[in-house]
Amino acid sequence: MPTVNPPRGMRDFLPADKARRERVLAVVRERYRAHGFDEIETPVMEEYGRLHAGIGGDNEKLAYNVLARGLDADGIRAAADDPAALTDLGLRYDLTVPLARFYASHRAELPTVFRAIQIAPVWRAERPQKGRYRQFVQCDIDIIGDATPRAEAELMAASLDALDALGLTGASVRVNDRRVLDEMLATFGFAEAERPGVLITIDKLDKLGTDGVVAELRERGATPAAADAFEAFLRRPQADAAGFDADGIRSRLPEGVGDDVIAHLVGIGEAVRAARGGSAEVPLVFDPFLVRGMGYYTGTIFELAHPSVSYSLGGGGRYDGMIGRFLGSDVPAVGFSLGFERLVDLLGASAGDDRTGIVLVHDRDVPLPELLAAKSHLVETGSRVRLDQRPKNLKALLERAAADGYASFVTLRAGEDVRSAEPRSID
Amino acid sequence: MPTVNPPRGMRDFLPADKARRERVLAVVRERYRAHGFDEIETPVMEEYGRLHAGIGGDNEKLAYNVLARGLDADGIRAAADDPAALTDLGLRYDLTVPLARFYASHRAELPTVFRAIQIAPVWRAERPQKGRYRQFVQCDIDIIGDATPRAEAELMAASLDALDALGLTGASVRVNDRRVLDEMLATFGFAEAERPGVLITIDKLDKLGTDGVVAELRERGATPAAADAFEAFLRRPQADAAGFDADGIRSRLPEGVGDDVIAHLVGIGEAVRAARGGSAEVPLVFDPFLVRGMGYYTGTIFELAHPSVSYSLGGGGRYDGMIGRFLGSDVPAVGFSLGFERLVDLLGASAGDDRTGIVLVHDRDVPLPELLAAKSHLVETGSRVRLDQRPKNLKALLERAAADGYASFVTLRAGEDVRSAEPRSID
Repeated sequence: MPTVNPPRGMRDFLPADKARRERVLAVVRERYRAHGFDEIETPVMEEYGRLHAGIGGDNEKLAYNVLARGLDADGIRAAADDPAALTDLGLRYDLTVPLARFYASHRAELPTVFRAIQIAPVWRAERPQKGRYRQFVQCDIDIIGDATPRAEAELMAASLDALDALGLTGASVRVNDRRVLDEMLATFGFAEAERPGVLITIDKLDKLGTDGVVAELRERGATPAAADAFEAFLRRPQADAAGFDADGIRSRLPEGVGDDVIAHLVGIGEAVRAARGGSAEVPLVFDPFLVRGMGYYTGTIFELAHPSVSYSLGGGGRYDGMIGRFLGSDVPAVGFSLGFERLVDLLGASAGDDRTGIVLVHDRDVPLPELLAAKSHLVETGSRVRLDQRPKNLKALLERAAADGYASFVTLRAGEDVRSAEPRSID
Repeated sequence: MPTVNPPRGMRDFLPADKARRERVLAVVRERYRAHGFDEIETPVMEEYGRLHAGIGGDNEKLAYNVLARGLDADGIRAAADDPAALTDLGLRYDLTVPLARFYASHRAELPTVFRAIQIAPVWRAERPQKGRYRQFVQCDIDIIGDATPRAEAELMAASLDALDALGLTGASVRVNDRRVLDEMLATFGFAEAERPGVLITIDKLDKLGTDGVVAELRERGATPAAADAFEAFLRRPQADAAGFDADGIRSRLPEGVGDDVIAHLVGIGEAVRAARGGSAEVPLVFDPFLVRGMGYYTGTIFELAHPSVSYSLGGGGRYDGMIGRFLGSDVPAVGFSLGFERLVDLLGASAGDDRTGIVLVHDRDVPLPELLAAKSHLVETGSRVRLDQRPKNLKALLERAAADGYASFVTLRAGEDVRSAEPRSID
């Protein structure tokens, strides 16, 4: 007999957890919609060939594949040497591949600049470990069809607004650009072929520190002169606070990074500052060593940070090349993914219930019609109402109800009128 | 190259469709929560053995199975004679099997009477046809742990309230009981072994009429005397309007159906009437020939009807035996499934947008910070705001926006203040 647990690495959500998740989603969805994003939905399954076309990076290897239907014994035997013949569909491992497929399919029915919201589960057959799940919700916004900094600025303004609405004020965005990274590495003298490997090492700067990164670069056999130049740059004296303007950005870069990229970044900063009320303090931080893993990024990359946590609460970037692989013609695109599971964990009980619930505790002999009439009366007054027959242990019942978000209770005996009963607080 | 369409039988939802679906869900969820139901969530996948234990009926054959990970060529060859060895997980085909598994797993953390909401997609590899999808949303409420008519009454009152809130007033519930069917067939003289087949024929009464059903019964070789008795009963003269009370129910049944079952039904009727304000008109109709397909029903069965459509908008019933198969000890349970996809189709555009959206049409030379500040201002006033650069064809842009739920627009030139602009209606 199978166990009664959910499959390994996947979760059941009990009422209090599910309510918390839905409340966070409702806030995020409402804010993103206010900022002009439109929600779409795609099926959880995509064709096998779509999911394994190289766009998904390492996630492709983690995809759950669905057994093709109607295979007979010969078909199965034949598939021993070509396991892909066993499957024709798979569960999506991200929302970006489905979005690109969706856009290619429906472009004619969408606005020229399309602002998409996707809030949906994805599946990855990761080795189960704390905080990593095989089914989890992604919460993405993307802007397709806008190559200007307006797109990045709208994504950031909307996401900061969503965090504010969740009570997480004071968030900021770490920003870089893949072109900055590339031009910077060229300046130091890294050959084009070695740059992807160098980026993987630079991505560990937070974890390894300057010494560790420099050591790893030398260990992996990077061009020695380039590693020297990079080390000298890392160890140079710098001013502590550099603003998110042209001078501030340039002060954190070696000579030789192009003006175009810096102008794009400055444009984003000015727009986000204006969107956030125009205060001098822009919630953007330029980080020339921010890398982000996905291979499809082509321009701006960014991560959402909050002073209360050391990990990022989301991130994204520009991926101007990808839609073209589905559509045949290039379309600019930039996306941002909010770390929904992390947000829910971080908010914890503070994303609490509205606590308008009343438990109607009735004696066993209250006639059923009276009971349902009393419940309807309370529901009509705007309450959330749970019926419970009075148990031996009323305290345990009320504690259970409080955990589920109920704030008060009334008792009902046969012949009593619920309208004259005074709700009592559970606490 | 794969197509850019969604997999066969599955759907993409564009912004207007998705918004409609979310609005219907929000109303249903809010009403069910008000009636004391708690939402839960389970993973989309369950263990293969759970999904193929006979509870799912014909749906088991339609399950999508997920390819086991880490199979090598030998494992695949060995599976040719035992295809179940290719898979260890499957996508759920309903929400009832997962609920029973969830309850067995978490019983200690749940209230004694557990009222569950599940709103989630399920998957069935049906032959694609109009109105049948391979991924669709089910919207179930269930009450576990209450054997009394209170449970059925709460399900019905909550569901009728949800339909009211969607603007579908005037709905009613057709009600029967599996025990009524069984006792009725015994009365006519059908042998126990032939009754399941007779029920399949009776289920076609709406479609085939009395003549067709009687003919099919004889064709399939039902006990002739029983078929005669059944025909005589079907063709007997009856009063048109029988109330949902003991006399009314009994007037629609042959002699010999037990009092217990009728008392249970009458109890439900009185409670629903009280929940609906106590008017003389109870929105319940007794239908002694209502069958409903699933084999796991053990008692009350019911379907939601609305005068505007000939098909049912949902249905459910009591399945007291099922939880015990997971838990080892019997627990009473009754569930109701709202036909969400049918509801969305029926409501169509009337589940329309709130239409508070404003399109901010800006000239190309409006500086980006001014643009984002103007957008933020409108968002803060409570609007949903879409930015669009003024195109050659403004009319087409506004029509597209109207289809996405935007009601008005303002134009913005460089140097203008959006706060002094007057929004104009798109229509």
